[in-house]
Amino acid sequence: MNSQPIGVFDSGIGGLTCLKELKELLPNEDIVYLGDTARVPYGTKSRETIAEYARQDIAFLKRYDVKMILVACGTVSSVMETVPIFEGSGVELYSGVISPAVKAACEATKNGRIGVIGTPATIRSGCYTSALKAIHTDIQVFSRACPMFVPLVENGYTDDDNKVTTLIAQEYLEEMARENIDTLIMGCTHYPLLKGVFAKVLGDGVTLISPGAEAARYAARMLGEKDMLCGSGGACRLYCTDSEELFAENVAAFLGSGINAEIKKCSL
Amino acid sequence: MNSQPIGVFDSGIGGLTCLKELKELLPNEDIVYLGDTARVPYGTKSRETIAEYARQDIAFLKRYDVKMILVACGTVSSVMETVPIFEGSGVELYSGVISPAVKAACEATKNGRIGVIGTPATIRSGCYTSALKAIHTDIQVFSRACPMFVPLVENGYTDDDNKVTTLIAQEYLEEMARENIDTLIMGCTHYPLLKGVFAKVLGDGVTLISPGAEAARYAARMLGEKDMLCGSGGACRLYCTDSEELFAENVAAFLGSGINAEIKKCSL
Repeated sequence: MNSQPIGVFDSGIGGLTCLKELKELLPNEDIVYLGDTARVPYGTKSRETIAEYARQDIAFLKRYDVKMILVACGTVSSVMETVPIFEGSGVELYSGVISPAVKAACEATKNGRIGVIGTPATIRSGCYTSALKAIHTDIQVFSRACPMFVPLVENGYTDDDNKVTTLIAQEYLEEMARENIDTLIMGCTHYPLLKGVFAKVLGDGVTLISPGAEAARYAARMLGEKDMLCGSGGACRLYCTDSEELFAENVAAFLGSGINAEIKKCSL
Repeated sequence: MNSQPIGVFDSGIGGLTCLKELKELLPNEDIVYLGDTARVPYGTKSRETIAEYARQDIAFLKRYDVKMILVACGTVSSVMETVPIFEGSGVELYSGVISPAVKAACEATKNGRIGVIGTPATIRSGCYTSALKAIHTDIQVFSRACPMFVPLVENGYTDDDNKVTTLIAQEYLEEMARENIDTLIMGCTHYPLLKGVFAKVLGDGVTLISPGAEAARYAARMLGEKDMLCGSGGACRLYCTDSEELFAENVAAFLGSGINAEIKKCSL
C-alpha cells in the first residue's frame, strides 16, 4: 500500500490520453501531470535535446514524491529505449509507452502485419520496429512518420469526416493499407483523437492500439502486483510550462468534462 | 562605415526569408542568424514565455558585436510592440517586421481594405491592426490566425496547387476574400513560401506583402542613411539551438542553393 501520487509527463497535452485512461482504471489514485507546453513539440527535435528536456521533466515530478512515472510521450519513450534518462534520478518505477503498446499489438494481430505511425523522431529511432521484432522476429512492420497529425489535432481538425485530415491520413496510410496490415500502433499520444479518421481510411478490419492507454493499463497492473495501490482520494494536479489559459482549453478537448483537475503553471 | 555584422533572429527557420532578402540587398555585409529551433514554434506560446526567449536570443547575438538586430519573427515582433525586450540589452539599432510591413501595405492598398494573417499569438496581439490604424484611421483590417500554415510549410506542402494547403487556405482566407481586400500582409515569415497558393485562392488583384523582406529593405535603408554599411565580405553564419542536420535540410528549402552559409549548433 502506497499513497504517493503517480507522475505522468508529456511534451504537451497528448499525454492526457494516458491520464484519462489512468483515471478510469484507478479513480482513487492521486496523479501529478506535467506538460512541457513552453517547449512543445519534442517530436521534431534531436535526440540530445529531447533527452535533456526529459531529464528536467523527471526532476520536476520527483519533487512531488511520486511512486511511479509514466512517460506518456511517444517521442521521449523512443529516446529512452537507448538513452538512460532515468539514471541518477532516484525514480525506480517507470514506464514509457512503447513496450506496453508493442505487447498489445502482438496480442491483437492475426496476420503478423503491423503498422506504426508516429512523429519523425519516433519513427527515425526505429524503436517500435525493434521492439516488435524482439517479440516475434517474423512480424512485418510498416512504419511512417506523420508530422502533420499533431498540428491537426491541436487545431481541432478531428472530426471523423474532416476533409483535410482525411486527405493527409490517406497520404500517410495508403501504403500500409495496401500492405494489408491488421493492427495499427498510434505511436504518438495525440493520435487517438483521430482514430475515427484512421478507422474510415483503413476500414474496420484494422485494430487501433493507443500506447497511452496501454501504458496506463500496464501501470495499474504493475502497481497492483507490487501492492502499491491505495489512492488518497483521486486528486489530479496538472502542471504546464506555458500559460495556464492556453493549456486549460486543450485539457477540455482531451479529457472531456468528467475530470476535475487543478491547473498550474510551473518552471522546470 | 561600420564592418560589424548584422544580427537576425527567429524562433526557427522562417526568418530565413528575411535573411535571403538582406543578402540580395546587401551582398557584402556579414550576417549572424540565430534560429531557436530547440524551442520552435513561439507562435503558440504565451507573451511572457515569448519575451523571455527573445531576450535570450538578443543576448546571444550581442556576443557577436552586431551593429543592428532584425527580429525576423512575426510573433516576437508583435510582443515587442508592448514589451520592451531590448531594454538593457545594449543594442541600439533594431527593428521588428511589423512597422516595415505596415508601411508597405499602406503604400500598396488602393481601396483601404487590408488582410492580415499570422500565428495565433500575432493575431491575438492585434499589433498589425493597431499599427495600420495608427497610419490611417479609416483603413479596414480583416485579420485571421492561421496556425496550420507553419506545419504545412515545414512539411513541404508548398506547391502552388497542393490540395491540402489549398483547402486550408480557402478556409482561412475566404472571409477576407469576400470582404474584397486588395492587400494581404503575410504576418509570419514562413508564409511567403505559400504565396503561390495565396495568389490562386485570392486572385491576381491582391498584393502580397512579405514582412521579412520589408524588414530587410528597411534595414538596408537605415544602415545606408546612418553610413553604417561596409561589409567585410558577406560571410553568413547560421546558428541553431537544435541539431545542425535538421536545420540544414530546411535552410536549403528557404534559401535555395545560391547562399553559402556556415551552420553551427549553439546554446542560449
